[in-house]
Amino acid sequence: MSFSVTILGSSSAKPTAARHPSAQVVNIHEQHYLVDAGEGVQQQMIRMGINPLKLRAVFISHLHGDHVFGLFPLLSTLGLYGRRTPLPVYAPAPFGELLEGHLRYFDSDLPYSVEWHELRTTEHVLLLENRTLEVWSIPLRHRIPTAGFLFREKRPPLNVDKFKIVKYGLSIAQIAAAKRGEAVTLDTGEVLPNEELTYEPYRPRSYAYLSDTARSAKAARLAAGVDLMYHEATYAAAESKTAKLRGHSTSEDAAKAAVAAGARRLVIGHYSSRYKDEQLLVEEARMLFPETYAATEGSTFTIEKRR
Amino acid sequence: MSFSVTILGSSSAKPTAARHPSAQVVNIHEQHYLVDAGEGVQQQMIRMGINPLKLRAVFISHLHGDHVFGLFPLLSTLGLYGRRTPLPVYAPAPFGELLEGHLRYFDSDLPYSVEWHELRTTEHVLLLENRTLEVWSIPLRHRIPTAGFLFREKRPPLNVDKFKIVKYGLSIAQIAAAKRGEAVTLDTGEVLPNEELTYEPYRPRSYAYLSDTARSAKAARLAAGVDLMYHEATYAAAESKTAKLRGHSTSEDAAKAAVAAGARRLVIGHYSSRYKDEQLLVEEARMLFPETYAATEGSTFTIEKRR
Repeated sequence: MSFSVTILGSSSAKPTAARHPSAQVVNIHEQHYLVDAGEGVQQQMIRMGINPLKLRAVFISHLHGDHVFGLFPLLSTLGLYGRRTPLPVYAPAPFGELLEGHLRYFDSDLPYSVEWHELRTTEHVLLLENRTLEVWSIPLRHRIPTAGFLFREKRPPLNVDKFKIVKYGLSIAQIAAAKRGEAVTLDTGEVLPNEELTYEPYRPRSYAYLSDTARSAKAARLAAGVDLMYHEATYAAAESKTAKLRGHSTSEDAAKAAVAAGARRLVIGHYSSRYKDEQLLVEEARMLFPETYAATEGSTFTIEKRR
Repeated sequence: MSFSVTILGSSSAKPTAARHPSAQVVNIHEQHYLVDAGEGVQQQMIRMGINPLKLRAVFISHLHGDHVFGLFPLLSTLGLYGRRTPLPVYAPAPFGELLEGHLRYFDSDLPYSVEWHELRTTEHVLLLENRTLEVWSIPLRHRIPTAGFLFREKRPPLNVDKFKIVKYGLSIAQIAAAKRGEAVTLDTGEVLPNEELTYEPYRPRSYAYLSDTARSAKAARLAAGVDLMYHEATYAAAESKTAKLRGHSTSEDAAKAAVAAGARRLVIGHYSSRYKDEQLLVEEARMLFPETYAATEGSTFTIEKRR
């Protein structure tokens, strides 16, 4: 029942020798979701032992090249690997036109289908839902239409307290009812409320990806209570004017967003190429939000289960 | 007066953790030319200390993604770096449409122009010429229209033999005339043919890039006498059927092309991802052509001057 985020790319638009543009893989219960797809993402996945064929869906925050140029080569290679399963891609318009052009010129005989779902970047809506997970959009403030993503684990099935089973002499049928969240009527006629018998094995976990964006109170509110927040920090605090002008955040902006959201941990990334070492940015953010960590490529942030 | 080739990518269509798709930089007298532009090419240039702003022109052999997907991110980044100089790109149709789409969606305000020159892949023609260099197309045999490139250094200015200057007491004007390739008339009326006074400081150097292609007698003929030949060797000799089917070459095909052309040295690359170690391919090629070397990323092949 994993819940983790692996950083594949941590740079902003200009890559450096050591940093790739934005990309990460969210692993939830061994289902892999790609979030943004900067150049080189397919090779980064291979380097980090993540099988590109296992991708369940792709989420693209916006159509600046450093967040999407790696997707098209990845689509081609998945075809060479013989993928058959359709691949959903959530991305803002005009992604459909870009995809159509790519398929026409490079991949007219792709053995699987790419299913584009239009990401409406001004709406906070449920994009994807399955047995264990919901993914929601979070509107962001950037130079072009951009949305972040909120990954929310569903409530796990309830556990029935073993001591209560013995205490009340519950039958198999009664245990099953309790697991479904129902109250249980004993042979004596006594009704036990569900809360008396069950407990959540762990709290549902959550992760918010907020990039690229200037600081947004609304985004922080929509990410309230997340276990892990990724927030871009393109610039150091001293560059707040440049950041605002370009629709980006500083280290301080990222920290303030984490504080406002009441996040448990913050990961910053999307560093400008001017910062050879991201430690300055991390230190600045930690002044306001001590649980700040650097997105370094190849590192994995695991959200542990907790009660 | 450098003449060298630096390998940026050595893999075929599926990149591996260690190998990027096709790309290399030809450096002729400190003018840099990019040949093919697989994904990651901009980062590879940075890693190898080659300033992407210095590129004089780009040559794209064909429009399979693994030879061109890295060009569009590079074009964007050159814009971010503030390039102003127009960039000529030689590529087969429909590159113009791809470029138009890229500029429309991603780079509508690029601060320099990209000048597309259509590469007619069935013709052996002069593509680019300047003071020191000619670049010619070489038709290749692949699944889609593809051409290789022949880089040919121009004859260097003649040197005037110092001993002859003393022997005949040549004036500055007479020396200049000899340097221009003219005969010189002495005060005595004696006419000295140019060959008596001058010599070539070194032989013009040449490099042929032949990828992707099945073995082609015509291509080898057009590359006759090159100092260095890059020939794709996607497969080992045992896979000749697969190679032929896919319009590719084996290690043996590459070696035979080098023999047929009378090349001085052969570099093989574009390895299938099935070969974790390319040594097998090199050894097979060396059985027929001992001066075979592996294209490994970061390695530079320098063509030294010789008389």
